[in-house]
Amino acid sequence: MRIVVLAGGIGGARFLVGVRAYAREVGAEVTAVVNVGDDASMHGLRICPDLDSVMYTLGNGADPERGWGRVGETWTVKGELAAYGAEPTWFGLGDKDIATHLVRSTMLTAGYPLSAVTEALCDRWQPGVRLLPASDDRLETHAVVQLDGEQKAIHFQEWWVRHRGELPTERFVFVGAESAKPAPGVLDALAAADVVLVAPSNPVVSIAPILAVPGLREAVAAASAPVIGFSPIIGGAPVRGMADKCLAIVGAECTAAGVGRLYGPDLLDGWLVDTTDEGADVPGVEVRAIPLWMTDERATAAMVGAAMELDLAASRPPAPKRGQP
Amino acid sequence: MRIVVLAGGIGGARFLVGVRAYAREVGAEVTAVVNVGDDASMHGLRICPDLDSVMYTLGNGADPERGWGRVGETWTVKGELAAYGAEPTWFGLGDKDIATHLVRSTMLTAGYPLSAVTEALCDRWQPGVRLLPASDDRLETHAVVQLDGEQKAIHFQEWWVRHRGELPTERFVFVGAESAKPAPGVLDALAAADVVLVAPSNPVVSIAPILAVPGLREAVAAASAPVIGFSPIIGGAPVRGMADKCLAIVGAECTAAGVGRLYGPDLLDGWLVDTTDEGADVPGVEVRAIPLWMTDERATAAMVGAAMELDLAASRPPAPKRGQP
Repeated sequence: MRIVVLAGGIGGARFLVGVRAYAREVGAEVTAVVNVGDDASMHGLRICPDLDSVMYTLGNGADPERGWGRVGETWTVKGELAAYGAEPTWFGLGDKDIATHLVRSTMLTAGYPLSAVTEALCDRWQPGVRLLPASDDRLETHAVVQLDGEQKAIHFQEWWVRHRGELPTERFVFVGAESAKPAPGVLDALAAADVVLVAPSNPVVSIAPILAVPGLREAVAAASAPVIGFSPIIGGAPVRGMADKCLAIVGAECTAAGVGRLYGPDLLDGWLVDTTDEGADVPGVEVRAIPLWMTDERATAAMVGAAMELDLAASRPPAPKRGQP
Repeated sequence: MRIVVLAGGIGGARFLVGVRAYAREVGAEVTAVVNVGDDASMHGLRICPDLDSVMYTLGNGADPERGWGRVGETWTVKGELAAYGAEPTWFGLGDKDIATHLVRSTMLTAGYPLSAVTEALCDRWQPGVRLLPASDDRLETHAVVQLDGEQKAIHFQEWWVRHRGELPTERFVFVGAESAKPAPGVLDALAAADVVLVAPSNPVVSIAPILAVPGLREAVAAASAPVIGFSPIIGGAPVRGMADKCLAIVGAECTAAGVGRLYGPDLLDGWLVDTTDEGADVPGVEVRAIPLWMTDERATAAMVGAAMELDLAASRPPAPKRGQP
């Protein structure tokens, strides 16, 4: 059995811990297609927050309390960079984390694509899941904002980490998306998948940038496998992060049904919402309410198990579509 | 009064502390022209060991016991790089030091020359001395060695830090020297100098790479100012470092007189040796024996004072040569 997961950072990482547990039980292989829209260059280092959150979490190197970065992190380099007045000062790079960025940046400069770099980094972390960036090409989420009386496009990291998402924001753009290609292995994984899961990640700035890679949304929609999403909104609020702010910017309702409708029946076959949101309706999509709090690995694995039991007869033909356009 | 110093790393840094003390007493300006032959790229970072040794030492940021690197240094990144198996593993980059390299590398990548980067870094350290790299161009000292049964050229850092200078070594080469240019300010500083001091640095791998920049040796020799060197060898042994190994490789005697002769009367007007080496003779150069142990700032400043009192009538015409070829 082959499971493909579309995932962002912290929520995606926690979800993948449960997917891996489920996969170990049933003997399945897991491929995670991870958002690169948050990736940024700072202090000459290429930083991939979502790939690293997933890698560190699955490799038991993440800080469980903070949710991002490395456990036992130290901050010597950050203090020194500040002493030099080196910009940006609003983004904290930990010492352990910097080593990852040094290895990545050195390999990228040497000409290796991000997918190969990610594979090399995973040699150390042994995440037990195949991690693929959505694209090897530069695709960065920028926010079009009002700042100092002007309309500007700033990087998502600046929008969120520096400005806490509180600037008047018109929209998000995925810079470089037009010419980006799916990373090697992504389309093959989708074509061969038995199920495609959309993690309970931010639909606007984690999942949308993945689907913005030309050909990737089409490959998900055309996959013979059912596509089942997990709501990141429970009881009208994001489980963590800033999905509420992002949904407002794209004009979507901050509810489990609102996110399901944003994805819509073109993408989804099934949509799992929390029991709190029982009755949520997404036209053309099979909706089921189950407990969606990822309190631990077991609870998250149970969510995945519930997805596998979803009766999709109503929304998807029972015969495999494999090979169809 | 304008003092120009040709200097390498640790010995040069300690010497410059004394030069600065002397200069403060007499109201002189000091320009240090620093070796770049040790510079190397590791983990994607541009590392300038000699410039940094001088900058940290004069800026009160150096580790006084180790002699190199930062006081209170930590080694988190190094441990993490090793966990990734990232090469080279034999060169230890401290966390504080890495911040310097990140700032430098980012500026170099953005197109700033090394001299401008050095000036920017010195904004923080306020060394009280103008630091100029000998060249903004890549000029790297490599050792031609026998390794694994083959003749190979390896970077000086690899030769010294990895192999402890113990490989059979035929010679040193200064890669890139042919096309290197003196950094902006170097030739002007030499032309305007009232005295040029050659620090008691390694003559073969610290001072020679400076003089290997086309036009630089000629500018020192043609300067109207007297050129006075300080022996790095006391009683037949280097004060620190590997000058003995290096002198053997270039076929020079490891004595105060041997180094003086290696520089020779074309470069030097005066040569200061330790009282232990009283009687050392360098044909065509005024030699004087004074205490040369740089035990502290005061002792080192006294060495500089003694250089200023050297009677150079015998070896140099009393009239300024400024403007002569």
